[in-house]
Amino acid sequence: VQALVFDGRVVRLREWPKPTPQPGEALVRVLYAGICNTDQEIMRGYSGFRGVLGHEFVGMVEDSPQSEQVGRRVVGEINAYCGECVNCLSGLPTHCSQRTVLGIRGRDGAFAEYLSLPAINLHFVPESIEDKAAVFTEPLAAALEITDQVHIRPSDRVLVLGAGKLGSLVALVMHLVGCDLCVVDRNGRNLAWLAERGIPASLTPPEGSLADVVVDCTGNPSGFQTARSLVRPRGTLVLKSTYHGMLEVNLSQLVVDEVTLVGSRCGPFPASLRLLERDLVEVLPLIDRLYPLSDGSAAMDYASEKGVRKVLLEITEN
Amino acid sequence: VQALVFDGRVVRLREWPKPTPQPGEALVRVLYAGICNTDQEIMRGYSGFRGVLGHEFVGMVEDSPQSEQVGRRVVGEINAYCGECVNCLSGLPTHCSQRTVLGIRGRDGAFAEYLSLPAINLHFVPESIEDKAAVFTEPLAAALEITDQVHIRPSDRVLVLGAGKLGSLVALVMHLVGCDLCVVDRNGRNLAWLAERGIPASLTPPEGSLADVVVDCTGNPSGFQTARSLVRPRGTLVLKSTYHGMLEVNLSQLVVDEVTLVGSRCGPFPASLRLLERDLVEVLPLIDRLYPLSDGSAAMDYASEKGVRKVLLEITEN
Repeated sequence: VQALVFDGRVVRLREWPKPTPQPGEALVRVLYAGICNTDQEIMRGYSGFRGVLGHEFVGMVEDSPQSEQVGRRVVGEINAYCGECVNCLSGLPTHCSQRTVLGIRGRDGAFAEYLSLPAINLHFVPESIEDKAAVFTEPLAAALEITDQVHIRPSDRVLVLGAGKLGSLVALVMHLVGCDLCVVDRNGRNLAWLAERGIPASLTPPEGSLADVVVDCTGNPSGFQTARSLVRPRGTLVLKSTYHGMLEVNLSQLVVDEVTLVGSRCGPFPASLRLLERDLVEVLPLIDRLYPLSDGSAAMDYASEKGVRKVLLEITEN
Repeated sequence: VQALVFDGRVVRLREWPKPTPQPGEALVRVLYAGICNTDQEIMRGYSGFRGVLGHEFVGMVEDSPQSEQVGRRVVGEINAYCGECVNCLSGLPTHCSQRTVLGIRGRDGAFAEYLSLPAINLHFVPESIEDKAAVFTEPLAAALEITDQVHIRPSDRVLVLGAGKLGSLVALVMHLVGCDLCVVDRNGRNLAWLAERGIPASLTPPEGSLADVVVDCTGNPSGFQTARSLVRPRGTLVLKSTYHGMLEVNLSQLVVDEVTLVGSRCGPFPASLRLLERDLVEVLPLIDRLYPLSDGSAAMDYASEKGVRKVLLEITEN
């Protein structure tokens, strides 16, 4: 099958073996897949992954040990877990110590005509959610992981740094909380898009009081220092960015200001699908361009340009 | 008056002006004061403080705008706050943006015959708590700040790294929670002391499963990496150490493991006095040596040696 493969150096379209589902796994024909910043960080060395990239997708089940899944449209949780380790048995399957992660760790991803995932990872997509919107289930779930981990109060002052692909979804989720929200980004187009939706957005952080909660969605190390400077004492700084490399941090300042840092990754798919089905989060306008899989390399290049929003790959026809 | 003063280079005993209480402030004659790691970090450049060191003390009120305080034995909260800034008005006086901190920031400390603090910072010491135990009110409050900030469950597996001055108090507090506790330290004498009190203590972290909560009381930057490696996914790492300098941190790993970092500083004096009064936390055996204030420089030297526990200064007679 055709696949977009990272060999440790470059990403290119290659002929690649069709995945062979392991016991308990389903075979999914990919309809659309989305390009995430993590894909670009993998190309910079993050996670050391080699293989088919991609972890945001919607697809059709062609084969599954759960026969009711066959022929159905699905999205899929990206962490395949063992079910036996201490993390799995503690109810933390996304932290399984043996996990593979679609297109990120030990498992070929979604930038291919077919992928395989454990059948229990798949979720049916409600009829009313169109294909291109369903691709956002995974990143929207990642945004919802914040409100799953941290109690964001409607009376909180919340700052989202970065209104890119993930930051916009985080902003839309925070908007629903009713909190006193401001989104900061350097890109005027991103800001205008948010402002049209009634979300206060600004090129610079608002003057005056610090925020109760700051979410760093900048996707780069410098975002941390800015985020840190904008959170109030005893406030919470949520880290959503993964990137390659280390960062110099003044931990004593975290102690003195008693700041809480919360790392946040993959989130709840059912809640994400509910928000999409209820049309509470508008995702289609976040799509910047569509590319066929055959133009995958060009799509990756375009997605890495500054200010570009979600780029989707059209992989097979529904 | 005699005072132990840090001039930016060395600490030495000097003749120093008797403090002049400002409006709202009380004048306290210091009976005993305790040497804390923070005092040593200040000498390495932490906080940039110059003046009389010391923030752990018990003393007698000689003058106060609250007349009922005069002649009473007190301990004192170390943060003097404005009561008007956004942090004060949010109920976070220890984070007052204008604060001075006894012997740490903009206010001469307790290694002197007299100190001044706002009268509202003072707490009467119950009769049954002897002078030398009362000096521990401040560091014990700092240990209690952990359970004030983080919900430590009796069913949690908790690891305390470092059984020095603060770490021992943290261990004693965690012991009361009933959690599955282990304390790790390189000093056999510290471990033996804890083991005698029924607190599991070890030279190396226990093998096997990671901890739900790890408290870093090592007081040095390398402690962070160890602490980080011992906390489970979605677990909590509490930072109690303040030291001079920056640290290289892999923030992406915090994101991937969804770890929560909590900076923790000054804690609740009333709760600390309750534990001391109820004799639930045994502090007197933590005292290593007593020095008269006139031998203050020698006391500071001795306190900085490895494995030395709490050193107290005897300042004036009760």
